[in-house]
Amino acid sequence: MDPTVVGTRQSRRDDVLDAAIEVFHDKGYAAASIQDVAERVGVLKGSLYYYIDSKEDLLSHVFDTSDEQSRAIMEGVTEMDAPALEKLRSFVYEWSLWHLSNLERASVYFREWRHLDGRQQGAVRRKRREYEGFLIDLLEATKAEGQAAAGLDPRYVCFFTLSALNGLPSWYRDQGGDSAEYIAGAYAEMVVGMVRGTAAASRGRVRG
Amino acid sequence: MDPTVVGTRQSRRDDVLDAAIEVFHDKGYAAASIQDVAERVGVLKGSLYYYIDSKEDLLSHVFDTSDEQSRAIMEGVTEMDAPALEKLRSFVYEWSLWHLSNLERASVYFREWRHLDGRQQGAVRRKRREYEGFLIDLLEATKAEGQAAAGLDPRYVCFFTLSALNGLPSWYRDQGGDSAEYIAGAYAEMVVGMVRGTAAASRGRVRG
Repeated sequence: MDPTVVGTRQSRRDDVLDAAIEVFHDKGYAAASIQDVAERVGVLKGSLYYYIDSKEDLLSHVFDTSDEQSRAIMEGVTEMDAPALEKLRSFVYEWSLWHLSNLERASVYFREWRHLDGRQQGAVRRKRREYEGFLIDLLEATKAEGQAAAGLDPRYVCFFTLSALNGLPSWYRDQGGDSAEYIAGAYAEMVVGMVRGTAAASRGRVRG
Repeated sequence: MDPTVVGTRQSRRDDVLDAAIEVFHDKGYAAASIQDVAERVGVLKGSLYYYIDSKEDLLSHVFDTSDEQSRAIMEGVTEMDAPALEKLRSFVYEWSLWHLSNLERASVYFREWRHLDGRQQGAVRRKRREYEGFLIDLLEATKAEGQAAAGLDPRYVCFFTLSALNGLPSWYRDQGGDSAEYIAGAYAEMVVGMVRGTAAASRGRVRG
């Protein structure tokens, strides 16, 4: 096949995926239809089936491509020749920036996984554990290099941080003001500060 | 009216609200019915209307009572005779514990606000800004008392922390192990560590 045609087809497939993300975000996946996606792309519904099989197929693509992008960020960090604390800073910066640059995609990712079939839900859970494991390993390495507070519990820093990042899309749109780069920088510094500054959570010490 | 009867009626109303929270959590608000709630309580659907007006009314009660509980936590913290950093620690501890002790209620609160009517959605947004304002004020006071890193941006610490807390219900159930009190303590220490240890997010400093 003519490579120009292949390129055009791939680019058209990307347009369809982008439109699907917008529609799923605006209407919610359950209420969205292939017809809505076709209208957003500006083509007849029938011609969409040249690029996709079904609505389920589109949702599945959103998850797969998002996971590829996250994996690329992790690989970039892994390849850095730097102390663990700097890798941690970069990971939080890059992943915050991903959330802020993909508000609709990230919202669909965190909200609509219930609509995936059982096999794919299992895959999402495995990916989530992979992200958690990557971050926990970075935190353990930071501790091993003497750059983290001694009593720090990497598992809870991980959950705290991932939840905070997942929340970015839901408040960012309304707040305005600072650039995504500034906010990603602030988030990276907050995690580094937390890692360096947190004492152990001693049982019973805090007012209950 | 006989106070025993009033007490019983109030307690029965609480049972109905608890059942509604479970049903809304398990089935999702949109798919849940008054019939489901009646079955969970163990009464006929008709007798539920002695306690509530409608499904919308039940959802509205979930939000109102949750906001009352959050307000009680904020009032308790405000009345503490302690430095701002200790108040901050207590607030994060108590509110984390609330999320961990009310997993289903907190999930419904964060997931189902779209189903409230316009007036109530406005009220939810105002409450959210109230919580944000309370936390930002605490962070500003901590800075004013010289207990926070100089360059700390209270607004982003606030969003980071509230998102992290909102995420508690979604991962806690699967993780097991530590008690809610231990995790709330770890969260409180992480926020205190972040406040004390975070440098300013200098623009352009972080690898982009």
